[in-house]
Amino acid sequence: MAKRKIKKAVLAYSGGLDTSIILKWLQDEYECEVVTFTADLGQGEEVEPARQKALDMGIKPENIFILDLREEFVKDFVFPMFRANAIYEGEYLLGTSIARPLISKKQIEIAQQTGADAVSHGATGKGNDQVRFELGYLGLNPDIAVIAPWREWDLNSREKLLAYAKEHGIEISKKHMDENGNPKASPYSMDANLLHISYEGLHLENPAAEPEDDMWLWTNSPEEAPDEAEYITITYKKGDPIAINGEAMSPATLLKTLNDYGNKHGIGRIDIVENRYVGMKARGCYETPGGTIMLKAHRAIESITLDREEAHLKDELMPKYAKLIYNGYWWSPERKMMQAAIDATQETVNGEVKLKLYKGNVIVVGRSSDESLYSEAHSTFEEDEVYNQADAEGFIRLNALRFIIEGKKQPERIASLIKNNEE
Amino acid sequence: MAKRKIKKAVLAYSGGLDTSIILKWLQDEYECEVVTFTADLGQGEEVEPARQKALDMGIKPENIFILDLREEFVKDFVFPMFRANAIYEGEYLLGTSIARPLISKKQIEIAQQTGADAVSHGATGKGNDQVRFELGYLGLNPDIAVIAPWREWDLNSREKLLAYAKEHGIEISKKHMDENGNPKASPYSMDANLLHISYEGLHLENPAAEPEDDMWLWTNSPEEAPDEAEYITITYKKGDPIAINGEAMSPATLLKTLNDYGNKHGIGRIDIVENRYVGMKARGCYETPGGTIMLKAHRAIESITLDREEAHLKDELMPKYAKLIYNGYWWSPERKMMQAAIDATQETVNGEVKLKLYKGNVIVVGRSSDESLYSEAHSTFEEDEVYNQADAEGFIRLNALRFIIEGKKQPERIASLIKNNEE
Amino acid sequence: MAKRKIKKAVLAYSGGLDTSIILKWLQDEYECEVVTFTADLGQGEEVEPARQKALDMGIKPENIFILDLREEFVKDFVFPMFRANAIYEGEYLLGTSIARPLISKKQIEIAQQTGADAVSHGATGKGNDQVRFELGYLGLNPDIAVIAPWREWDLNSREKLLAYAKEHGIEISKKHMDENGNPKASPYSMDANLLHISYEGLHLENPAAEPEDDMWLWTNSPEEAPDEAEYITITYKKGDPIAINGEAMSPATLLKTLNDYGNKHGIGRIDIVENRYVGMKARGCYETPGGTIMLKAHRAIESITLDREEAHLKDELMPKYAKLIYNGYWWSPERKMMQAAIDATQETVNGEVKLKLYKGNVIVVGRSSDESLYSEAHSTFEEDEVYNQADAEGFIRLNALRFIIEGKKQPERIASLIKNNEE
Amino acid sequence: MAKRKIKKAVLAYSGGLDTSIILKWLQDEYECEVVTFTADLGQGEEVEPARQKALDMGIKPENIFILDLREEFVKDFVFPMFRANAIYEGEYLLGTSIARPLISKKQIEIAQQTGADAVSHGATGKGNDQVRFELGYLGLNPDIAVIAPWREWDLNSREKLLAYAKEHGIEISKKHMDENGNPKASPYSMDANLLHISYEGLHLENPAAEPEDDMWLWTNSPEEAPDEAEYITITYKKGDPIAINGEAMSPATLLKTLNDYGNKHGIGRIDIVENRYVGMKARGCYETPGGTIMLKAHRAIESITLDREEAHLKDELMPKYAKLIYNGYWWSPERKMMQAAIDATQETVNGEVKLKLYKGNVIVVGRSSDESLYSEAHSTFEEDEVYNQADAEGFIRLNALRFIIEGKKQPERIASLIKNNEE
Repeated sequence: MAKRKIKKAVLAYSGGLDTSIILKWLQDEYECEVVTFTADLGQGEEVEPARQKALDMGIKPENIFILDLREEFVKDFVFPMFRANAIYEGEYLLGTSIARPLISKKQIEIAQQTGADAVSHGATGKGNDQVRFELGYLGLNPDIAVIAPWREWDLNSREKLLAYAKEHGIEISKKHMDENGNPKASPYSMDANLLHISYEGLHLENPAAEPEDDMWLWTNSPEEAPDEAEYITITYKKGDPIAINGEAMSPATLLKTLNDYGNKHGIGRIDIVENRYVGMKARGCYETPGGTIMLKAHRAIESITLDREEAHLKDELMPKYAKLIYNGYWWSPERKMMQAAIDATQETVNGEVKLKLYKGNVIVVGRSSDESLYSEAHSTFEEDEVYNQADAEGFIRLNALRFIIEGKKQPERIASLIKNNEE
Repeated sequence: MAKRKIKKAVLAYSGGLDTSIILKWLQDEYECEVVTFTADLGQGEEVEPARQKALDMGIKPENIFILDLREEFVKDFVFPMFRANAIYEGEYLLGTSIARPLISKKQIEIAQQTGADAVSHGATGKGNDQVRFELGYLGLNPDIAVIAPWREWDLNSREKLLAYAKEHGIEISKKHMDENGNPKASPYSMDANLLHISYEGLHLENPAAEPEDDMWLWTNSPEEAPDEAEYITITYKKGDPIAINGEAMSPATLLKTLNDYGNKHGIGRIDIVENRYVGMKARGCYETPGGTIMLKAHRAIESITLDREEAHLKDELMPKYAKLIYNGYWWSPERKMMQAAIDATQETVNGEVKLKLYKGNVIVVGRSSDESLYSEAHSTFEEDEVYNQADAEGFIRLNALRFIIEGKKQPERIASLIKNNEE
Repeated sequence: MAKRKIKKAVLAYSGGLDTSIILKWLQDEYECEVVTFTADLGQGEEVEPARQKALDMGIKPENIFILDLREEFVKDFVFPMFRANAIYEGEYLLGTSIARPLISKKQIEIAQQTGADAVSHGATGKGNDQVRFELGYLGLNPDIAVIAPWREWDLNSREKLLAYAKEHGIEISKKHMDENGNPKASPYSMDANLLHISYEGLHLENPAAEPEDDMWLWTNSPEEAPDEAEYITITYKKGDPIAINGEAMSPATLLKTLNDYGNKHGIGRIDIVENRYVGMKARGCYETPGGTIMLKAHRAIESITLDREEAHLKDELMPKYAKLIYNGYWWSPERKMMQAAIDATQETVNGEVKLKLYKGNVIVVGRSSDESLYSEAHSTFEEDEVYNQADAEGFIRLNALRFIIEGKKQPERIASLIKNNEE
Repeated sequence: MAKRKIKKAVLAYSGGLDTSIILKWLQDEYECEVVTFTADLGQGEEVEPARQKALDMGIKPENIFILDLREEFVKDFVFPMFRANAIYEGEYLLGTSIARPLISKKQIEIAQQTGADAVSHGATGKGNDQVRFELGYLGLNPDIAVIAPWREWDLNSREKLLAYAKEHGIEISKKHMDENGNPKASPYSMDANLLHISYEGLHLENPAAEPEDDMWLWTNSPEEAPDEAEYITITYKKGDPIAINGEAMSPATLLKTLNDYGNKHGIGRIDIVENRYVGMKARGCYETPGGTIMLKAHRAIESITLDREEAHLKDELMPKYAKLIYNGYWWSPERKMMQAAIDATQETVNGEVKLKLYKGNVIVVGRSSDESLYSEAHSTFEEDEVYNQADAEGFIRLNALRFIIEGKKQPERIASLIKNNEE
């Protein structure tokens, strides 16, 4: 395929080895100007060093964008998703998936500002991230050109990459070399942001193998976690957490604080085989300390403030919502549509949840709210003034009426139900 | 309401105080013959003593039915439900709900055998269990009369009940009396079977209050659990567990064994506010040690053996399925219909899951199966022969086509998406 | 059951025989003041005569409320429902169901204004309408007392009703008597408003019997309809129709106009057996002339203005939405939640639909919109600049990847799929 | 892209111009042996002439497969789909979609028999059919090579195709030429089988334009249809039609007979803008005469034989099921899973439906079944012995309980509901 003509490309640039190689490759292969975009999403690494690296590779100062997106990330992406109690395939809290749409959006904005006609990312051709980035790009700018080097080049192994770097004078940090200065075996494939850190590859490619202890970078193991439980209280307003132990915090600070609690108490390790959108199964390990706490707390505050059928409809929609985000459809009309339904329920999700954190466990020990729908008078076992027990008979008899009629008119269907159950 | 004429009633009889009072009350109020039915569902109490108590209250020997239903309970009710990964409202494993349809079925069968024209149960008029029992009764015999004493009598407090017992010479066991022989304050409302034990009432009626430590009867607390983790392996066949650590076990034995593991390691405590079918919210605490392990293990074996879209469709149907069982619709055509869909996926859910149990945590550390769909060749990050990375471009571009067209034809909709996200 | 003490009751009063009997009965049985509420919902009968009748029965002038609700009915109830393309059980356009929540709301408002402590309606104890009325009452005022005479009195046959009327001096209009002044056999049970007229009972109770020709009151039969087709154009704005043939109309006028077209051309007769919320099946016949046209037109304008996945998600939610309305849950948080999702899609549902009306047929013959997402360039069969046909290969191969992996790893599953299909 | 090495390819060959060009092109470009497969699916054209044409192009007699698939098509594909009442986007009866999986399956079987390593089809790169064919191929044989000439060659216009045909001596039938023997403008893109005939392209590419009268090939227009209505009765067994007017018929004969009725009475024309799986909207017109009758009849027989919740769950699953088939996922585990749920309900769908056919209208005028769940005793308006009207009060009050509690505890939510409705 003949290379397209590209004038200027905005690259999602971490400053690390892989995206530095991409930067160079874009300059060489496309002979285009490159704009670098480096975001602080709370991944826990300095972003400023990327500036010097970019300058060293000939990027003009005005083409270097380094942005602190932590508050926007948590407020406009993480929190709306947690309002939905989103979990993919029963386990995964979508930590990587939810960061991609924000990166896409910023790249498109920077392309607009700088007059770039292309965007580029460092995701491979076998994963979900390429889809998430590019659905974002094309969803927000249908005319943008997309360059996905991993699908175009032939640097399809660790060795070839390092050789390319050496050949082009790209600095290889020590973590990629052994003590003799030779290229080290590939590390885990990792991704981190304020919500989580993920691990794929290597040892994990065997789904029967337990992860090595030293793979986990954030959390204490439950064994290492303190022997003493700790209690915290989270305050919710309109479905979002706004304070911990009574102290109001910005979204990013709040999530960071929950991460600290979770890391300390060994909370939020996940080890799964998941189904990728591009068709294969993949083993992934994740640490989502704060998110694991938030999910539990949000369900707890909803348990006293949401109407039953709102809660059930949310539960029925959730798998579809989680799938949308996993597959990269944040910037879609159907996500907006589902979000409208979810958000319509969160106005009254206000109050406090008390949690006990202990060696990997997040235990809800109390919930309270001025908007509670819990009525002690109705749930007590003693007699009350508000509930007429006789009502239950009519309730049951009319709910059973279709069975009664069926049983009278077509009695053999009962036998069929029973037989079916015993097979 | 004039009492109906009842000839003979089959009572779900535990041998405890409440159902003994009901037995007497049925004899007095309905002047009918009573058949007692006492089931061993693994609740952990002897069932044989119920025989003597029934005889003492004048029940004819041939009208006393004491059945060991543990295997049938686990095989035909618990296991099919776990194939669906059923959870109600994100937390509750349906331990009480799933036992009711079996009790209903047996009562109807015994009514048929003994020529009884009525059935009776000891569930109150404010709870879900009355619905579950009676939908079962009427679903399996539309002509049966149902007697729900708690909805009919005026013994609507602990004190009145104990007075009635005393007056009618019903033995009150010591656990209902304090050291002076006076009636003790009401205990928690509890229900137990092989799958779980539940607690409601008292202290729990305040959803902001943490349960008292000594309420929990089955499990060690995570704090008390061993400091050493333990590994177990569960073998699955057609979606059901059949062996632990390579040792084949009957369904009930297997669940009992998992309960032992769970109790030891502090696994399976649940503390929630749930939405009852009869309309109010209620606080409930549950211990489901073996079930908690099974849910995690079943999802893990499914993760390598199920096709992606099967798994997702199961996840979308699950909340509805769980609600059916919670609400008491086991014996309904729609449960049968959903079960057909679920079971159609389980033929290939075979293999082994290795778990680590530690202080409340159930951690999947390995899964393997001869029927695995996991392909290391496809998920590896190195180059491979089986996957053409270039395919991803077409995949993404066609999935994005509706956005591209929208963006070109109606560009203002993009602005609306972004604006909407920031609100 | 002892009669509750009622001070003042707001009765949904049509002025007809049945609700006149109820009025009298309320006065006698409850010895309470009665407030009459008569609504013009477009049922096609004068509402003013109800005033004199009420006065004749001793109702104070300030207790007589006669309201023209036609615009509110169509704008705030019918139109939102049609945005969802709601159909119950594949056929029924919910004409009765959608009127009940408005009546409930007005009764509660009038109770508030007049200081009434009760509301009452004339729906029977076997139908859905009692549920719809009362869920509305209790949803909007939890303390209101509800009087449902049909469930309380013993006037459970036509003959007893007429006897009661005679005895209490209630005027029996000629349509209830034969030529000799004797009570006539009961008519069809009917309900009408701007959206539809319904028929139940009599001859229809045999589901194998065709309705009699003279039952249908509104529409021409297709046979009687003109031999010449007629074309009309409906203009949509934000999902609601706002003009016919370019002439802007208020909601009620627009629906009335569509009814005229539909009646003339034999459009909108429905004959079904439906499943009532209270548990039994019932035969119903309906005429929904304008609604039938609107449903077709709304789908057509959506077909060019909605994104595919919005449209599909609407289709997936629709049966649940329709069921909510059928069952009487308009005033529920879950309806509000679903409406939020639906309305979030309708902002862009603008444009024109051209229809051909002919002997029962509503045929879409054209749709156009400034907000169209239809791209002739993309759908043409000739070559184009905007679509790369090669993309389809990657799209297909990645969508097939799970099958390819399954086929390679577990080939016997293919055989099972095929075998299953042939059974 | 270098051409893959292909030994032998099975081509879906109609005998028409396009697939004859493909045949030749395969021989030339791939230098491979070609096996032709021509199926009679009831498209209404002779299939035997394809044999001579194939021979003329050098195909060996043993490589020519001409199969009558009409019975298998209707029995194993059309009927199972109609059990689901499948409709795509509210209108389309999936006539093209449902034929593709059978063709795919046969091609794979013939490839197996003849030792072919590739399959090929004549669908373009912009449509759904390529997806449907190829998901079938790859779902049934993961190793098969797929050749999609329309995505590979550069014959991307009518003119180039005809030029290619002329150059290679492929006979061009008169319908492709004008009176002077010059290539005629392209016809509608059409597809036909026993279930339907479809039209796309040309004049239809403007969604505002009404189809030309002479486009429709099968049905009378409603105007041309007889002035006299006709009544027919369809007998159902386990959800499938088995007889018309009491005369038992094979599946294909039955559908053919219904087509004759429908064509005569102007039934089954559909004109829509649909959303293609590959991402764009497309205008399509369809004639599905027999299918339109079957859909109506099947719903009618279900209306008296299915339990309410079975019917509702079917309605909720239907859009997803229809989408699966539209998108080409017949041979998927998720379709099998949904079919299991659907089929589990059809055991009792037995009985007779009487229909009136008149000028485009299919009117249900009666349904009867030995397995009916309709109970006249329960639905009558007169008093009865089987239903206690007082039960309705309890039913309503418990269904309203969550509103009552909400209204008492959080009264401002009521105001919010009302306000929301008026916006």
